[in-house]
Amino acid sequence: MAKAARAEGLAREIVAVGRRRESLEPALDDGAVDRITTDIAEGVAGSDFCLLATPVATLASLLPEVWRAAPDDAVLTDVGSTKAAIVRTAQTLGRSRPLSFIGGHPMAGSGQSGYGVARADLFKGALVILTPTGSSVPPALTRVSEFWETLGARVTTLDPATHDRAIAAVSHLPHLVADALVDAVFRMDPRFLDVAAAGFKDTTRIAASNAQVWREIFQENREALGEALGAFRRALDDLERLITGGDAALVERELDRIKRMRERLS
Amino acid sequence: MAKAARAEGLAREIVAVGRRRESLEPALDDGAVDRITTDIAEGVAGSDFCLLATPVATLASLLPEVWRAAPDDAVLTDVGSTKAAIVRTAQTLGRSRPLSFIGGHPMAGSGQSGYGVARADLFKGALVILTPTGSSVPPALTRVSEFWETLGARVTTLDPATHDRAIAAVSHLPHLVADALVDAVFRMDPRFLDVAAAGFKDTTRIAASNAQVWREIFQENREALGEALGAFRRALDDLERLITGGDAALVERELDRIKRMRERLS
Repeated sequence: MAKAARAEGLAREIVAVGRRRESLEPALDDGAVDRITTDIAEGVAGSDFCLLATPVATLASLLPEVWRAAPDDAVLTDVGSTKAAIVRTAQTLGRSRPLSFIGGHPMAGSGQSGYGVARADLFKGALVILTPTGSSVPPALTRVSEFWETLGARVTTLDPATHDRAIAAVSHLPHLVADALVDAVFRMDPRFLDVAAAGFKDTTRIAASNAQVWREIFQENREALGEALGAFRRALDDLERLITGGDAALVERELDRIKRMRERLS
Repeated sequence: MAKAARAEGLAREIVAVGRRRESLEPALDDGAVDRITTDIAEGVAGSDFCLLATPVATLASLLPEVWRAAPDDAVLTDVGSTKAAIVRTAQTLGRSRPLSFIGGHPMAGSGQSGYGVARADLFKGALVILTPTGSSVPPALTRVSEFWETLGARVTTLDPATHDRAIAAVSHLPHLVADALVDAVFRMDPRFLDVAAAGFKDTTRIAASNAQVWREIFQENREALGEALGAFRRALDDLERLITGGDAALVERELDRIKRMRERLS
């Protein structure tokens, strides 16, 4: 995001805060950021726009320190892929010190991490979901929306709970299913992977993502994921029952209905 | 295949046989084939290499007529994605009239059909599985292997039953799962599809394939598909149990094991 913001001339000064200087140095060397620090208070002091980007389980534990260090007029946002917990934490913190926080979720990324794979055009055409609540102030929402739109993204808003259910359905469920597909083939016979072609590779591409990141996402969103898994199991059981039943016309009608749903996506 | 064979100068004369002339005419106009006919006996007469390419359920019912019309020294092969049934049919026909048949399965294609989407380079780098049996004659296997290798494919062999189990695992199961994923999101809330990003699109790309083709594949290979579904359901249940259990280290170890398996595929 720093690389993209710099490319668009979006900030006078960009400060990168992280746990290890070595992770931040490539961005400094490349000119994407102007300063790096491992001290949250030092990095956040004087900022007008704070963007939190850590694994989801870290976000809620990090937010109080950022909240204390941020100036009164700063706008805070994040890029976590679950939203109910972080928004709740922000609302709790807001009761003792009002600050502008807008939950955010840019749907972009390759599953790879580190500055070495950063791309200034990563967000061009990507969807970013923002999750304002009744207590969000409109100028903060406008500020965060404009940030992402300037990077080329399309911005939409959802309430935090609906966001978590929708993302469980279209992101977390497919991820868990891709993991189970790879494991299922391994359980049957690992050599079967030798004849895997494009279909299998596409369907399981997301199974090669970072294990810590996804462990945290699955656990953070396990309630909505449970609901999505229920819907998936019922859909799979119904399809299997149709196929076993042997009524060709019924099976074709159902597969065709699903094909047409899928074709609505580009 | 005609377009690719023509591009490689693989045949003096290529005859296309189909149910409807209109489907064949574009190939004739383009010079990919030299003659077209809707009469199997007329099309197959005098040929030295017959390649059957129909939906799987049609292959077995078509083979007897091709078998009667083919010259004694012709080599017959097919491109069906299940192999046990067609190989069994060929073995039965071979008892009354010995002919060379080698089952084949090129793992290439886009889910689209018709000459309009044909590409001469479709098989470059693709995997083709041939399923010779104890009664196959070596020169026929060599002939079919060389055909595919000349089109740029890599050829491997499996016995028909192992082929069907392997393909159930790496092709038919992922396909059914992709169908169920699309349907699951639809069951939860069709509007959730509006926030689907690259991960969902990759995972469900194959759900937009031809309904008749896949109905036939699922029903033809339902026994091996049932085995693969069993392995998949156990893998999914185990992953869900781990996540619900809440042992972060265990979940991460399992996701990392799966990630490393997936990374073995290019």
